[in-house]
Amino acid sequence: MDEELLRTFSAGGPTGHLVDDLAAIVLAILRDSPETREDAARGRQVMVENPRLIALAAERLRQSVESCVVHAEKREGGHFDRRRLDVAIGLVLVCFHIAMERYLDDDVETDLSSLFTASLATARDLLAT
Amino acid sequence: MDEELLRTFSAGGPTGHLVDDLAAIVLAILRDSPETREDAARGRQVMVENPRLIALAAERLRQSVESCVVHAEKREGGHFDRRRLDVAIGLVLVCFHIAMERYLDDDVETDLSSLFTASLATARDLLAT
Repeated sequence: MDEELLRTFSAGGPTGHLVDDLAAIVLAILRDSPETREDAARGRQVMVENPRLIALAAERLRQSVESCVVHAEKREGGHFDRRRLDVAIGLVLVCFHIAMERYLDDDVETDLSSLFTASLATARDLLAT
Repeated sequence: MDEELLRTFSAGGPTGHLVDDLAAIVLAILRDSPETREDAARGRQVMVENPRLIALAAERLRQSVESCVVHAEKREGGHFDRRRLDVAIGLVLVCFHIAMERYLDDDVETDLSSLFTASLATARDLLAT
């Protein structure tokens, strides 16, 4: 995990927009990850064949989210709102999930980061009133 | 499933806003569902204890989503965009999931429909640029 980015996040950056700043953390993790498309496809296949692993992964994800809460509390101070944070994290995770499905299923050359950014842009567009 | 609402959805309503119109379908399903908070809590517990059921539920959800695609195609006509639809459905599902967690975990009297509508409003607010 990029410690400097976490410090930036806690201080309210890099953009000041909660969803975009959570997305920046996901993009940093992707940038530093050595995982290939084949690794990700194999990981998904193993999970489909061993549902127990889905439960374990969900629990690990829950723990990762909890470990981020302290940074969000620091960032928001007295304005901290756990419900709002949960929705922001949910938005980022669902856009990541959609990007990953597309990355593994569609016959495209696009990298996962670009697909994630595109999903988030579509979400923003869809919710624009 | 409310056939009239599905017809309305296919015709581009009730609001003309894809996410809100998908949410209207979820709200109609909730309105007609006899499931109590205790039923939902029991269902979640059974899933946690039997991860195989999580995989089954995910597959059933995938099939339900596929069966909705035809209505979305009718609605959007030549403008139909599967990627956009996937993001819209993902947004609605993640807001529903967050509402359900809150419904089962928080010590509040609020009903699930209100929590779902509130999650969606928070998502819209978070993504407003």
